[in-house]
Amino acid sequence: MTSRVYVLGGYQTDFAENWARNGDELYDGFAHTVKTGVETVGIEPEQIDTAHVGNFAAELFCKQGHLGGFFAAQHPSFSGKPASRHEAACASGSIALLTAAAEIEAGRYGVAAVIGIEQMRNVPGQTAADYIGGPAMFSGHECTDVEFPWPHLFSELAEEYDKRFGIKQEHLAAIAKINFGNARRNPNAQTRRWTFTDESFTEDDEANPVIEGRIRKQDCGQLTDGAAIVFLASAERAADYVKKHGGKLEDLPYIKGWGHRTAPITYAQKIEESKDSPYVFPHVRGTIQDAFARAGIDSVDDLDGIETHDCFTSTEYMAIDHFGITEPGESWKAVEAGDIELGGRIPINASGGLIGLGHPVGATGVRMMLDSYKQVTGSAGDYQIEGAENVATLNIGGSATTTVSFVVGR
Amino acid sequence: MTSRVYVLGGYQTDFAENWARNGDELYDGFAHTVKTGVETVGIEPEQIDTAHVGNFAAELFCKQGHLGGFFAAQHPSFSGKPASRHEAACASGSIALLTAAAEIEAGRYGVAAVIGIEQMRNVPGQTAADYIGGPAMFSGHECTDVEFPWPHLFSELAEEYDKRFGIKQEHLAAIAKINFGNARRNPNAQTRRWTFTDESFTEDDEANPVIEGRIRKQDCGQLTDGAAIVFLASAERAADYVKKHGGKLEDLPYIKGWGHRTAPITYAQKIEESKDSPYVFPHVRGTIQDAFARAGIDSVDDLDGIETHDCFTSTEYMAIDHFGITEPGESWKAVEAGDIELGGRIPINASGGLIGLGHPVGATGVRMMLDSYKQVTGSAGDYQIEGAENVATLNIGGSATTTVSFVVGR
Repeated sequence: MTSRVYVLGGYQTDFAENWARNGDELYDGFAHTVKTGVETVGIEPEQIDTAHVGNFAAELFCKQGHLGGFFAAQHPSFSGKPASRHEAACASGSIALLTAAAEIEAGRYGVAAVIGIEQMRNVPGQTAADYIGGPAMFSGHECTDVEFPWPHLFSELAEEYDKRFGIKQEHLAAIAKINFGNARRNPNAQTRRWTFTDESFTEDDEANPVIEGRIRKQDCGQLTDGAAIVFLASAERAADYVKKHGGKLEDLPYIKGWGHRTAPITYAQKIEESKDSPYVFPHVRGTIQDAFARAGIDSVDDLDGIETHDCFTSTEYMAIDHFGITEPGESWKAVEAGDIELGGRIPINASGGLIGLGHPVGATGVRMMLDSYKQVTGSAGDYQIEGAENVATLNIGGSATTTVSFVVGR
Repeated sequence: MTSRVYVLGGYQTDFAENWARNGDELYDGFAHTVKTGVETVGIEPEQIDTAHVGNFAAELFCKQGHLGGFFAAQHPSFSGKPASRHEAACASGSIALLTAAAEIEAGRYGVAAVIGIEQMRNVPGQTAADYIGGPAMFSGHECTDVEFPWPHLFSELAEEYDKRFGIKQEHLAAIAKINFGNARRNPNAQTRRWTFTDESFTEDDEANPVIEGRIRKQDCGQLTDGAAIVFLASAERAADYVKKHGGKLEDLPYIKGWGHRTAPITYAQKIEESKDSPYVFPHVRGTIQDAFARAGIDSVDDLDGIETHDCFTSTEYMAIDHFGITEPGESWKAVEAGDIELGGRIPINASGGLIGLGHPVGATGVRMMLDSYKQVTGSAGDYQIEGAENVATLNIGGSATTTVSFVVGR
């Protein structure tokens, strides 16, 4: 048995903020997040042994790489402490978490700060679409004649569901409506004050215009500036922490299980490989099953909530059956039954998800871990899932190229 | 005691190749490297559990990120295997190695493929200088009015040595001459067929023009297309490997020790922090001492060779005293005594280093590990250090922001 990796808590920025409009650069967002994270969790900077940064595309948006190098300057005691940056497109934050956890399991370090960060609203919208369009897919080979590559590929995913099982637009719209609705309860959600009409979730081309194919405006995750930090700790250091802060080690959440699989980078090859599988993305199903197996849980019914990737509504539609909430192709049943709503059988994206809360790409995996922590410690405020003990994440990079799932609980 | 991580061997591309001129994209270089690496080491693809990619700036040079996603398509058995990309500027390759080793130590995987890769010669020289100029330092805040940021900062390093201890240009030139000389013995070196005159290593402004300050043309590492792969394995899986291939586990090199420290990203803050230290970069000294301590070796005299970062001659000049070959500030003594030449007391960069062999940024840390493997297994050919048993690396990102050192031996 490997040693447990505990989650001491963390912090996320207000995803509604536009950093450039506030006069803030990437560095300012980083500095604010580390400082406020340390204060929020009440950990002494001297106790932090190492830092891992998840970021996708700072080179393009901010002409800045080497983000591990930002950490040392944040406190005198950080200077010299090992730091690094990890990238797997929209799953970058989860790769940073996996690396930090592996180093703790290996006994290298006791406490790791894991920071996910992305600044994306400092460039025009079409530039942002270009920056996130190419690099996360097979650049120059996929979607070369498409205006919005990601909406296109996730429209293709909806098409694939339609081909194999049938899919109705109204179920995708219902997912969007739930996530925007949950976001209204989340004080950090980018869209918490956005207003919608009944037409916003219909096929009304004015209120909900088509972006690409089956993907309309309200089916899309947001372009967001944001960062999140969590602190991971070995059992020994977690015990020190609770001793100092009161409480018991048993009350502290830990990473019960994880899964990590990577598929060929092109969407076409993934679909080709899955043609004989009951699942559209069998490797995503495998990632979730790996996390379940390591956590020692049998099925999704042992979970109290899920924070999943919903870069588009079709992504969440896929997550529903891949988590085993329904049989393959029957995700619509869970939508119709209210299963995935707050108070339902298995609430999904109580936080609002990427659609409602926002999607600062490299931060998302870390933010999911933070929301899982909040849920299982009963500190999620107005979006709390009552009595949550076990929550799973599913973070996806590219067209489900990199897939990572965690089960967090107590 | 943590479990040993063995090095099964690997492969590097010919660093003299210009990929774009050959019609090759980044993906082609990646595919070639994985395929040839697998063949060279004689490992079955099915035996590889995971892949880690070190890369600095593919987003800028190739509009491509998410390089972990390249791995799965290289062999049917790779599909679904976890892969990720790691970045710390010129130390990206070493961060990929550290992560792979941590996962093996944690018992997550048995065999990891670690690929370092960079394509840099597909854009004009000044564009390349811009791409590597900003992102690895504090972009927009350092060197904003400088034409060649990195030559400028490493000229500043030479200035700092001059201020503290005195430095002579001839000793920097001698380092360049040794590295270009060693490269002539290395069949993969970018500069192996380059010709120089006696004036090339003087202050002749025509034969050796100033780039920035104290840094002249021959003091610079190269812009290189290239990739390297090594395979790391747990003790159990390394034993399986030798069983199949003949030989004994004791004959297989392993990572005896490692160090990893990260300093504040700006050059100015590093120099400010070091003002009361005998070393210009005390954290670099600390990184090396961490690697020595974990390897259980007392001093540099227990090593048979070093593969160090020499992005500029001043970088290697700094490495000489920081490794403890001389007292601080006396690196020139080792240069004059012939200590660092092949056949000397402690040969440095027998491979040719970044100046002679070339510097495909994200590949360099992995290439250093591969050369260490070659040296300690007696398979370095014409640049073999006779009887080498222990070799250390020093890989540096930015202005010595990220520093990683490994000790590899048998």
